[in-house]
Amino acid sequence: MPPVAPRSGDAIFASVERVNAELFTLTYGAIVRQLLTDLEEVEEVNKQLDQMGYNIGIRLIDEFLAKSNVARCVDFKETAEVIAKVGLKMFLGVTATVTNWDTEGTTCSLVLEDNPLVDFVELPDNCQGLYYCNILSGVIRGALEMVSMKTEVTWIRDMLRGDDAFEMQVKLLKQVPEEYPYKDDE
Amino acid sequence: MPPVAPRSGDAIFASVERVNAELFTLTYGAIVRQLLTDLEEVEEVNKQLDQMGYNIGIRLIDEFLAKSNVARCVDFKETAEVIAKVGLKMFLGVTATVTNWDTEGTTCSLVLEDNPLVDFVELPDNCQGLYYCNILSGVIRGALEMVSMKTEVTWIRDMLRGDDAFEMQVKLLKQVPEEYPYKDDE
Repeated sequence: MPPVAPRSGDAIFASVERVNAELFTLTYGAIVRQLLTDLEEVEEVNKQLDQMGYNIGIRLIDEFLAKSNVARCVDFKETAEVIAKVGLKMFLGVTATVTNWDTEGTTCSLVLEDNPLVDFVELPDNCQGLYYCNILSGVIRGALEMVSMKTEVTWIRDMLRGDDAFEMQVKLLKQVPEEYPYKDDE
Repeated sequence: MPPVAPRSGDAIFASVERVNAELFTLTYGAIVRQLLTDLEEVEEVNKQLDQMGYNIGIRLIDEFLAKSNVARCVDFKETAEVIAKVGLKMFLGVTATVTNWDTEGTTCSLVLEDNPLVDFVELPDNCQGLYYCNILSGVIRGALEMVSMKTEVTWIRDMLRGDDAFEMQVKLLKQVPEEYPYKDDE
């Protein structure tokens, strides 16, 4: 049997079950509002969104690997491209540009071309410290951890804070290549 | 110019922006888990999910009316059919069967043929009183209120509680036909 070719983000996105993006956006907005009410401190909300994203990422990676037919990436550079062009496309329907590599090839930025999380969102004055999209950086951190890459993912540009784009910095802290990363089905 | 024909739920769903259903499901699961942690009482979580849904519904109705070209429904029976065949399809990608009408034509059930909210979900023993999908009944209640129908929407069958289907009862409490329902853009 010939090997199964990796599928493009577009092809996968077209084939998976989907829900209306506005419903997702409003549902996510409802979470953030709820956390702001319950936790009060914006810093705590940032942490909680990141943690929720992490918990989602460690589950989503399974669907990603099952549906994308992506082979193990040879290095972090390839990994970043796969997230930008296949992973984000498959789940959010958008892509990102990979840029701002450091000389070691362990830190780069993902610049989002579109961000369905923030449609209709404006931050009130008392939420200026909020990283509204922290769930997304958490998802990437969680998903990468399940394929043996410990990373730090931080927002360095955020249009909700007045920047001209959404830019996440992904920093590879540690890679454990020999360990087989999949968890048993839970 | 000929009048614009109403569009089928399938056609609308195919044309709107969408995100991956598993991402939505896991994100919704993360909300419920968060609420269970923060609020402790299952009854409070039920109320909060309903309220979140209501807040989403009063927003989503605008997209529904804008995209569906559905004309004002002549009665509650037609409204129920439109929710079941167009609204649910447009947002969740599923449809429902309308059944169990009372003799006055003011109470019916929506029986869901599929429910993307509950994929991978099992309720732990200490959450047996949880109405996990209460956000959905809240959405319908909120959306209907914006078209002048005050309703009560309750789950009467829930597969997470061991029933053989998901069934929401929608009860029309009051209809205010003369009032124009749209809010100004916020």
